[in-house]
Amino acid sequence: MTSPAFDFAPLFPAGLPAPAAKWTGLAKYSFVGGNNDPDQVPVEGLIEAVNAVLRREGKTLATYGLASGPQGYLPLRQFLTAKLQSDAGIDCAADEILIVSGSLQALDLVNATLLARGDTIIIERDSYQGALNRLTRLGVNVVGIPLDHDGMRMDALAQALADLKRRGITPKYIYTIPTVQNPTGTIMPLARRAELLKLAGQYGVPIFEDDCYADLIWDRQRPPALHAMSRNGGVIHIGSFSKSIAPALRVGYIVAPWSVLSRMLALKTDAGSGALEQMVLAEYCAPHFSSHVPKLTRGLRAKLETLMEALNEQFGTAAEFDDPKGGIFLWVKLPDQVDTLKLYQAALAAGVAINPGPEWSTDKVHAGPRLRLCFASPSHEQIREGIALLAEICRREFGVPARSANVEKRGRA
Amino acid sequence: MTSPAFDFAPLFPAGLPAPAAKWTGLAKYSFVGGNNDPDQVPVEGLIEAVNAVLRREGKTLATYGLASGPQGYLPLRQFLTAKLQSDAGIDCAADEILIVSGSLQALDLVNATLLARGDTIIIERDSYQGALNRLTRLGVNVVGIPLDHDGMRMDALAQALADLKRRGITPKYIYTIPTVQNPTGTIMPLARRAELLKLAGQYGVPIFEDDCYADLIWDRQRPPALHAMSRNGGVIHIGSFSKSIAPALRVGYIVAPWSVLSRMLALKTDAGSGALEQMVLAEYCAPHFSSHVPKLTRGLRAKLETLMEALNEQFGTAAEFDDPKGGIFLWVKLPDQVDTLKLYQAALAAGVAINPGPEWSTDKVHAGPRLRLCFASPSHEQIREGIALLAEICRREFGVPARSANVEKRGRA
Repeated sequence: MTSPAFDFAPLFPAGLPAPAAKWTGLAKYSFVGGNNDPDQVPVEGLIEAVNAVLRREGKTLATYGLASGPQGYLPLRQFLTAKLQSDAGIDCAADEILIVSGSLQALDLVNATLLARGDTIIIERDSYQGALNRLTRLGVNVVGIPLDHDGMRMDALAQALADLKRRGITPKYIYTIPTVQNPTGTIMPLARRAELLKLAGQYGVPIFEDDCYADLIWDRQRPPALHAMSRNGGVIHIGSFSKSIAPALRVGYIVAPWSVLSRMLALKTDAGSGALEQMVLAEYCAPHFSSHVPKLTRGLRAKLETLMEALNEQFGTAAEFDDPKGGIFLWVKLPDQVDTLKLYQAALAAGVAINPGPEWSTDKVHAGPRLRLCFASPSHEQIREGIALLAEICRREFGVPARSANVEKRGRA
Repeated sequence: MTSPAFDFAPLFPAGLPAPAAKWTGLAKYSFVGGNNDPDQVPVEGLIEAVNAVLRREGKTLATYGLASGPQGYLPLRQFLTAKLQSDAGIDCAADEILIVSGSLQALDLVNATLLARGDTIIIERDSYQGALNRLTRLGVNVVGIPLDHDGMRMDALAQALADLKRRGITPKYIYTIPTVQNPTGTIMPLARRAELLKLAGQYGVPIFEDDCYADLIWDRQRPPALHAMSRNGGVIHIGSFSKSIAPALRVGYIVAPWSVLSRMLALKTDAGSGALEQMVLAEYCAPHFSSHVPKLTRGLRAKLETLMEALNEQFGTAAEFDDPKGGIFLWVKLPDQVDTLKLYQAALAAGVAINPGPEWSTDKVHAGPRLRLCFASPSHEQIREGIALLAEICRREFGVPARSANVEKRGRA
C-alpha cells in the first residue's frame, strides 16, 4: 500500500454491530461457551466413521448437497427420524427435517421465516444468550416468563398471553427450551408441557422448541418433546449434535411441517451445510450414539459434582443453585450486592471466564447477581482452581463470600 | 395430529421468498450448479488427511473454533497466506483472513457489512446468479457493465461511474470476478486490472473481488489479484475450496483489512464454520494442493473439449461461444429467436438441466438467447448425449439448429 489507506467506515450502513475484538485465546479457567469435554470426543469412532463413509461415498463430495438434495444428507436425516422417535417421541419423516449448520442457523432461519421488526415473542425469562441477542438485533419485543424448578411458569405465561391479547398483540411464537433449560437446567414435566400446548393452541401461537441439550440428562428420563405431544402441528423443533458429539462440528436440524420448512429452505441460500460433517455424524451415530451419550453424561455429571462441591467450599451459602437435571451449565445466584457484569470483567482479567447473568436474561435486575458456569470443558482440577480464584475475586470486589469461610475451606482442600 | 393443522402462513412477514419445491433429484444430464468431477475428488488424500489430523487434534473438536478462535482454523489460514502469496501475489497475514462456510457466506457477510436497501453497486453485466439474487433480495440497485474478451469493459465502467457521480450516487462497491469470470470464462489482463484499480480509486469505490474460480486456469497464467495490485487496500477478496477440492465441503474465505473484517466477524454469529472440513482441507492442501490442481484442470479441459465438440456437432453455427481460459462453465449464445428461459423448461422436462441466461445477467434481453453450461460434473458420454438431446429440444421448440445440420452431424457420431 503506497496510497492513503481506503476508509471503509463511511460505507457501513446504520445499525451495524460494533467491530469484533481480536481473539486472544481461551481464558485459563473457562466456564463459558457450550464447549464440551475434550476427553469425551469419540475420536477413534469418528476416525473409523470417516474412513468408511469417505471410502464408500467420497466422490459424492463433488456435488453440492451430495446425492441428498438441499435438506441434508439423507442417512443423517434417517438416523434422526429413528432417534427422535425413540428419544423424544417425535414421529416425523426424513422430508420434515432440514439439516442446518448448527442450531444457530436454525434460530436464524426460524426467525427469518416468522419475524418482522416490531413483532413480539415470548421466551423464558432466563434464556439462551444466542437467542436473546438475535431477537434484539431483529428489533423484536421480547416478553420474558419467569421459571420455577419445572421450567417456564404456566400461570405467568397465561397472564402474559392474556395481557398481550388485551393489547391486540398475538406473539409470533413462544420460544422454550423445555428439556434441560439453558441456563437453569430444569426439565419441564409432562403435565406442564400439556398445559403449555393448551395455552399455545388457545391463543393461536406456535411453539419454538429448542431441544439442543435434551440428550444430556443424568437419569435418561426425557419427557416426550412438545413437538411429539402437539395435536395441531404448531411446533417447530430444533436440535443439535454440538452437545452430544462435538460443538466444532456445525450440525443441527429443524423439524417442522413442510408448509413452513419449505419457506426456511428458500431462505437457506448457503448451497448446503457442510457435507463431510453430516456424513461422519450419520456414519458414527447410527451404531454408536446410544452408547456414547450415557458415557458422556456420566463424565459431565462427575464434573458438575466437582463444580458444586467447589462452589460450596469456596462460596458457602453465598452461592445458591439447584442441582440441574442434565446439561453442561449451572445457573448460580450470588448475594444481591454482586453485579456479575462487573465480576465478569474482574474475573476475566484474572483468567477466569464466566457468563454474567444479565446476558442470559430478559430481566437485567433479576439476573444482576446471577451467573452461568459451564462445566464440560474445564478439567476437574481447573474447575476447583477456577472457582477458588473466582471466589477470591468476588470477595475482593464485593466482600462476599466472607473471608473466614473461604480460609477454612481452603485449609481443608 | 388430531386438531386442525396449525396454519403458519398468517405469521409470515412480507417479502418472504416463495416456498422451495421438494427436491426430486439431479437431472439425468445436469449442466447446472458448480458441481465438480466426482472422479477428481482426491478421496484417498482426504482420507489420509482426516486420519492424521483427527488422530493429532481430534479432541479440539470439543471447543467451538477449535484452538484457533472465530476467524477459523489457523493452519488453514496459514496455508492460505502462502497460497495467496504464490498464486495471486497477495501479501496478507493469517489475521486478515476470515474462514467462512463457502463463498456464499462471504457474499452475505460483505453485503451485510456494506449495503443498505436502496444502495447502488456495480457488477459485470453477466455475472454469478448467487450474487445477483442476493442483491435483488437486498433491494440494491445493480448497474451492469458489459464484458468483452478481457472481462469488464473499462470504457463502460468509466462511463457508469461518471453517470452515477453526476446523479450524486457513489456505488458501495464494484463486484468483479476478474479471473475466470462467471459465466463468460474471461481473465482480465494485467493492464486492465490496473485501469480498474485506478478508476475505483478515482471515484472512491472499493472493489469486491470474487476469485472463486481462479485456481482453474488451463495454462496456469494467473495474473496477480486486484487485492495484490491495490495501493490503498480498498479491495475485499474472497475465494473458495469448492472448485479446487470439492463443493460439498463448505469452506471459503475472505481477505480484507481488519477495519472491515472485524465488522464482518461481528456479523458472523454462527459459532464458527465447520471445523472438520477446515481441518481436513488444511491437512490435505498444504502438501497436495499444488499437484492436485493441475491434474484437475487437465481433466476439466478435456471435458470442455468434449462439450465444445458436441456443441459444434449438434448446433453447428447456431451455438456461439468463446473458448474459456479456465473454469467449469461455458457461456453460449444461441440464435436470437431462442428464449433460454423457455428452453430451460422444455429441456428440464426431458432430463437436461441448463442455466438460462437471464438468471445470470443484469440485462435480460441481452441474455435471453444465452445459456450457461457447466461441464465438470457430467461424464464425457453424458455431455455428448445431453447436448444432442438439448439440440433436439431446441430445434423442436425454436427451429434451430436446422434439422439437416444435426442429421449430418449425428451420422458422423
